[in-house]
Amino acid sequence: MTDLRQSRSTLRVRRMGVDTSHEPVVYMHRDCAVCRSEGFESRSRVEVRIGRRKVLASLHVVHGDLVEVDEAGLSEAAWNLLRARPGDVASFTHPEPLVSLAHVRAKIYGHRLDAAGLKAVVGDIAQGRYSPAQMAAFVAACGGDRLDLDEIVMLTQAMVEAGERLSWNADIVVDKHSVGGVPGNRTTLIVVPIVAEFGLLMPKTSSRAITSPAGTADTMGVLAPVDLSPEEMRRVVEAQNGCIVWGGAVRLSPADDVLIRVERELDIDSEGQMVASVLSKKAAAGSTHVVVDMPIGPTAKVRTSENAERLATIFRKVGKAIGLKVNVVMTDGTQPVGRGIGPALEARDVLSVLQCRKNAPQDLRERGLLLAGAVLENSGRVPAGQGRAAAEKILDSGAAWKRFQAICEAQGGMRRIPVSRNRYDICARRPGVITSIDMRRLALMAKLAGAPEDPCAGIDLLVRIGSRVERDQPMFTVHAESVGELEYALEYLSGQEDIIVVADTEPPAA
Amino acid sequence: MTDLRQSRSTLRVRRMGVDTSHEPVVYMHRDCAVCRSEGFESRSRVEVRIGRRKVLASLHVVHGDLVEVDEAGLSEAAWNLLRARPGDVASFTHPEPLVSLAHVRAKIYGHRLDAAGLKAVVGDIAQGRYSPAQMAAFVAACGGDRLDLDEIVMLTQAMVEAGERLSWNADIVVDKHSVGGVPGNRTTLIVVPIVAEFGLLMPKTSSRAITSPAGTADTMGVLAPVDLSPEEMRRVVEAQNGCIVWGGAVRLSPADDVLIRVERELDIDSEGQMVASVLSKKAAAGSTHVVVDMPIGPTAKVRTSENAERLATIFRKVGKAIGLKVNVVMTDGTQPVGRGIGPALEARDVLSVLQCRKNAPQDLRERGLLLAGAVLENSGRVPAGQGRAAAEKILDSGAAWKRFQAICEAQGGMRRIPVSRNRYDICARRPGVITSIDMRRLALMAKLAGAPEDPCAGIDLLVRIGSRVERDQPMFTVHAESVGELEYALEYLSGQEDIIVVADTEPPAA
Repeated sequence: MTDLRQSRSTLRVRRMGVDTSHEPVVYMHRDCAVCRSEGFESRSRVEVRIGRRKVLASLHVVHGDLVEVDEAGLSEAAWNLLRARPGDVASFTHPEPLVSLAHVRAKIYGHRLDAAGLKAVVGDIAQGRYSPAQMAAFVAACGGDRLDLDEIVMLTQAMVEAGERLSWNADIVVDKHSVGGVPGNRTTLIVVPIVAEFGLLMPKTSSRAITSPAGTADTMGVLAPVDLSPEEMRRVVEAQNGCIVWGGAVRLSPADDVLIRVERELDIDSEGQMVASVLSKKAAAGSTHVVVDMPIGPTAKVRTSENAERLATIFRKVGKAIGLKVNVVMTDGTQPVGRGIGPALEARDVLSVLQCRKNAPQDLRERGLLLAGAVLENSGRVPAGQGRAAAEKILDSGAAWKRFQAICEAQGGMRRIPVSRNRYDICARRPGVITSIDMRRLALMAKLAGAPEDPCAGIDLLVRIGSRVERDQPMFTVHAESVGELEYALEYLSGQEDIIVVADTEPPAA
Repeated sequence: MTDLRQSRSTLRVRRMGVDTSHEPVVYMHRDCAVCRSEGFESRSRVEVRIGRRKVLASLHVVHGDLVEVDEAGLSEAAWNLLRARPGDVASFTHPEPLVSLAHVRAKIYGHRLDAAGLKAVVGDIAQGRYSPAQMAAFVAACGGDRLDLDEIVMLTQAMVEAGERLSWNADIVVDKHSVGGVPGNRTTLIVVPIVAEFGLLMPKTSSRAITSPAGTADTMGVLAPVDLSPEEMRRVVEAQNGCIVWGGAVRLSPADDVLIRVERELDIDSEGQMVASVLSKKAAAGSTHVVVDMPIGPTAKVRTSENAERLATIFRKVGKAIGLKVNVVMTDGTQPVGRGIGPALEARDVLSVLQCRKNAPQDLRERGLLLAGAVLENSGRVPAGQGRAAAEKILDSGAAWKRFQAICEAQGGMRRIPVSRNRYDICARRPGVITSIDMRRLALMAKLAGAPEDPCAGIDLLVRIGSRVERDQPMFTVHAESVGELEYALEYLSGQEDIIVVADTEPPAA
């Protein structure tokens, strides 16, 4: 029966040149023999094989003349995953039933997931077998506080096992992670060169933005290539003690990279999945000692110290269960760090700190030193209380800047920071003192302006809490690559209460 | 600013002839001016307008020559929703932020939804503003028992308000619904002609299958057109007292129709959403008295009488809150009703009952009479205990069959039942007595064979619990339109424990 099927269900493939993002799509004519004999319909899930490679794709049925009846079109994602070449013949079959979806349903119905169930779901996701809707159901079912500690540990382990795993010739491998929600908090690019210069191994893999205007990988991508293979990453770390690369390209915890795209579409990023996402990357990267930066503030991701304590406990316990020494550092999350919000603007701030420029944002410098110090202390190589000073010495000597340049060169060459084509200043409508800054809405504006897809888009913040402003003084600048996006961000602003609140400096005269 | 945008962001549209099912898709060349000035990327959500019509579409960016730089391709769903004509010019803008998604996130985080929140979400879904992933997150967030009674009432009301609402010139408008999970339970096609012949108004709108191999609308669709407009439906009911049409075509509770497609992809159908789905359709159709058929059995949707009682309570309470008199009838759900599973095979069984043929499945006849009797009694027009007899009299007189034919003619003409092209008998491997039938796996086989998309695909069940079989005697026949689907269903079977269990009739000799 199998032979019959294979002989019948093959078609020549054609590269359609359609970018459907990460979802593989197949285009078949409705009169095509495969379509008819297999009973495929629009949106059928179809397994496509070329040689030993296979992908699960969505079918779009063509009525007109976009494809011939004896060929199948492939979207860019399908073409690239199959490593297809012109003239290749592919076979098309119904996929095996997606058995692991039963675990997602069980979770929706409130049942606990076990290790085997999580492994099955995560494995299928990593192999691209879940549609966007099926992944969204998993994310929502596990969202909020719906995963208990054991489930988070098992999810973390399943995510590690679904991808590559690095190992290093060192007893101590350090790492850091910021929980996020604070725009501009780009300390990794400061911590890595300091720690690498100190002599510790810090093979850093970072994410692209989930719901923020820039992830560390987006900002580093402005300055150097970040999509390195595991072998390329290893060469950089062996030469420089550290690197800052995109985790997705090295296939560490690949399920996480797919889930992150769905979380972005839903604009959600929940506790259990956050811890699993962070620690699975660290474990897969071979880390042993991890510092977590957890900013707390009314518009940050973590809003109260109670939430911070609970989340910190999850981080420590899950870390311990999978063999990582995790130290959580609570930091100020009441306003953005540095000035820029968006990949290029943040990269500019980072360089000014590394170059020890006088106009460098002091808060970013301080945050970088605090965390670099915490990493040094958590490793046990620097006594408690002496980390910051050790880090400052390395930064102020210029050695960290040299090391950063060397890392960029090793990753493929340092790049020039691009500059936006459209800008617009938002000014104070009255004189006074800045009393609060809504980071969520500021971040949303940066996204509406095009960040992180357009690296030079974003916000340049010109004031801080406590700054005095005059009427019509610019408070922040919106940067965008296209006029349409600039308008889009400004339209959003026009319907909003003040994102930056200016209050009287003195009480009104009696 | 608005004028500038409109003049810049327009393109000639082109019908691509690509069927992307219900998701509207726009194809733009990556070098196209709109794409660049608006900063659109692959999978960007894009608002497309032609005249006063607008849709929210997903963008697929074209690298090759499928579209010119000065035109935008539209998928069939986008083309039809916009009622586009060749030569039309459409405008393309960033959609307004999807504010109602905040309520979905809140639900994921365990917060209760209020009326305004549910109305916002359901309204956006009914207007096609949610992507499949966003709808899946809503379904999962509200799945299991995560909606309380008030939330179910508010969800039901929101679903009614999001669509058309029918009203009838009658004090009593009756309806019935089967909860499902029992293949072949196609009693609606028997109940409607009996009740209509009795003289009560029964304007029945039915769903297509969610997770089953056939919904009532799929089965009725084999016998007559079911996608009638509200005006066409009204003419049928005014002439014949009853109809059996697809609810989606009359735009009653349109959000439900979209959600059902996502629930099918996830293979999930949860309690609160089920009640909201059912009763919103009834309320929107103008019903006042509703009978709910709730089959109970180990492989039915409702598995225990405790679950049945809980669900029945939700049905009655939500019904009362929105002004419906709901009566729940618990029925036997241990095995399929009738013989056929799949639209055409079920339609064949229904006709044999209406025609009072001797070989008609008696269980389907009995179930139809029981429910028709319950509908008559629930209306108050027939005293308690006398409903079944009244129904039987109408059926046996031949009047129900005449009425059914008249309804089919009024809906657009009675159709011939199609017959499958490929069949395969599954036989007993030993002699004995049938002790159990797994309806879930039988239904899954019918789906793998192509039901309900291929109406003649499905299963013909030749035995019942208690039947005696000999070795190699056929127990059921698999019907499929294509050889590929037949193989697909049989492959599934080969990896399974017995779907139908045959036990010894007598204990083995000592």
